[in-house]
Amino acid sequence: MPRVRSTMHTTPMSTSPTLSPVTVREVGLRDGLQSIARTLPTEHKLDWLRAAHAAGLREIEVGSFVPARLLPQLADTAALVAVARTLPGLTTSVLVPNLKGAQAALDSGADLMLLPLSASHAHSLANLRKTPDEVVAEIGRIRALRDASGARCVIEVGLSTAFGCTIQGRVDEDEVIRLLQAALDAGAERVGLADTVGYADPLQVARVFERGFAVVGERLSCGHFHDTRGLGMANVFAAWQAGVRRFDACLAGIGGCPHAPGASGNVSTEDVAYLFASMGVPTGLDFDALLALRQRVAQWLDGEALHGSLWRAGLPKTLLTA
Amino acid sequence: MPRVRSTMHTTPMSTSPTLSPVTVREVGLRDGLQSIARTLPTEHKLDWLRAAHAAGLREIEVGSFVPARLLPQLADTAALVAVARTLPGLTTSVLVPNLKGAQAALDSGADLMLLPLSASHAHSLANLRKTPDEVVAEIGRIRALRDASGARCVIEVGLSTAFGCTIQGRVDEDEVIRLLQAALDAGAERVGLADTVGYADPLQVARVFERGFAVVGERLSCGHFHDTRGLGMANVFAAWQAGVRRFDACLAGIGGCPHAPGASGNVSTEDVAYLFASMGVPTGLDFDALLALRQRVAQWLDGEALHGSLWRAGLPKTLLTA
Repeated sequence: MPRVRSTMHTTPMSTSPTLSPVTVREVGLRDGLQSIARTLPTEHKLDWLRAAHAAGLREIEVGSFVPARLLPQLADTAALVAVARTLPGLTTSVLVPNLKGAQAALDSGADLMLLPLSASHAHSLANLRKTPDEVVAEIGRIRALRDASGARCVIEVGLSTAFGCTIQGRVDEDEVIRLLQAALDAGAERVGLADTVGYADPLQVARVFERGFAVVGERLSCGHFHDTRGLGMANVFAAWQAGVRRFDACLAGIGGCPHAPGASGNVSTEDVAYLFASMGVPTGLDFDALLALRQRVAQWLDGEALHGSLWRAGLPKTLLTA
Repeated sequence: MPRVRSTMHTTPMSTSPTLSPVTVREVGLRDGLQSIARTLPTEHKLDWLRAAHAAGLREIEVGSFVPARLLPQLADTAALVAVARTLPGLTTSVLVPNLKGAQAALDSGADLMLLPLSASHAHSLANLRKTPDEVVAEIGRIRALRDASGARCVIEVGLSTAFGCTIQGRVDEDEVIRLLQAALDAGAERVGLADTVGYADPLQVARVFERGFAVVGERLSCGHFHDTRGLGMANVFAAWQAGVRRFDACLAGIGGCPHAPGASGNVSTEDVAYLFASMGVPTGLDFDALLALRQRVAQWLDGEALHGSLWRAGLPKTLLTA
């Protein structure tokens, strides 16, 4: 059993007593709830939002400006943004699929709009009815709209199906890198890579993020992983090793993708928080508050498939006494 | 978002077109079944054993030579070994807690005996009623017995609670390394590190295995992880990065520890197999056969808590067409 890859043996822990913090963006109110048929009452969403903020989350995606007939679950997004804006230090994020949604996001006063762009041509057509390059063109129009509005709303592009696609299968890595650059050239200020359908493996995650950093630098600033086949946390760890310091996650691991049959949800916020806490990486998150909120979310979503592990076992003694 | 740890960006995939194989040792028949109150009939165990072998598993821990009054679930271990010995190319492993068990293992004709040694003093007393150094002394007596018998049975020591303990909390890493060396000095031929209670984090796993390899070299040859808090697969990945090429796993993720309340099971064989397949690492395992066996195990253990993710989502299109 040879020791291999000795250059990878050095951990930050052994070279740096203080690890740089990681930001977790809670996306349960958007990516989570859009995958669940029932509509959570606005009142519960506001409880969720406030409790998530109280638990230390400082980026929260509160909804999506898509037509209410497509996603009635998220029809109250503007009301969510209005309250989120009042919470101190919170970056309020909304998903925006097109120019019309971008105008709604600007009107709402959100701090950040996340524009989905599929690396998979087939997924792009199925999900957005546009080719990836048509979406890139729309990003350009959204940037112009934002600039003309004078609003400060940050434009972030989430490159979905960046590690594979349930429809077309393999997604070319060169195409992933090309689209990252194209999104930035069109006017995005940040980009992220998303394993929308749970196809990624940790080596692939390390490799694609490394290529992405080499081409677009620090503007590549988010990792979004699902735990469909048990590799969600390994992929988060591999992305962190590659230098990612900002991750999407959903409380209770809810979420999925309409074009990813059998997909279990996003990596769970509480498990991601635990991963980083266990390694000594600051996240600013409060476990008691997160787990208490998870319990309320589980009550509100009684009967839905929830995920995550920490809630069952609780914190280890080593962290409780740390 | 700075790119950090650039020495860790290079993946084996980019430097080596052929990755060295990984061995998965199926321990469900021992670690899995000992944590379940019901006794699985020998006939089902033999089906499990044969099907696991047919699925490509070439190391299987078939039971434990402990007194039947303590673990009636494993009282048929000798019968299992007798059949396992007839399966071509199979390394038959049994757990052995003491000299008496070692004699039974030698009598049975097993290929490998796994001796547990707790790195946690408190866990050692609770689990084996001996201090770690008393267990080390017993390892020496077992080695003498084995040598006198003329049998080829390999002596492997599994250092449990190597990453933390539910009773005493933190486990000193110096003590872990000391006990690895002590076990080898006493006569063990191989050693492994086990996160018996699901306390490990990936940086710790990398660090402790690195220290272990530095001190005892390739004789450190197994990683044993539980998925108690969602980090099982991340820990397997981190251990693999550190150079581990042999892992314990349980079909359907069953298993636990009597002194680890709330612990979910071992990492699941099918998910571990998927992790490595997704990265292009050969394991020799057949997914269809593993998932078919999982289904039978789930029937036999109807009502027990099972774990793992792959069985629900199935293989991704990218692997099916590979």
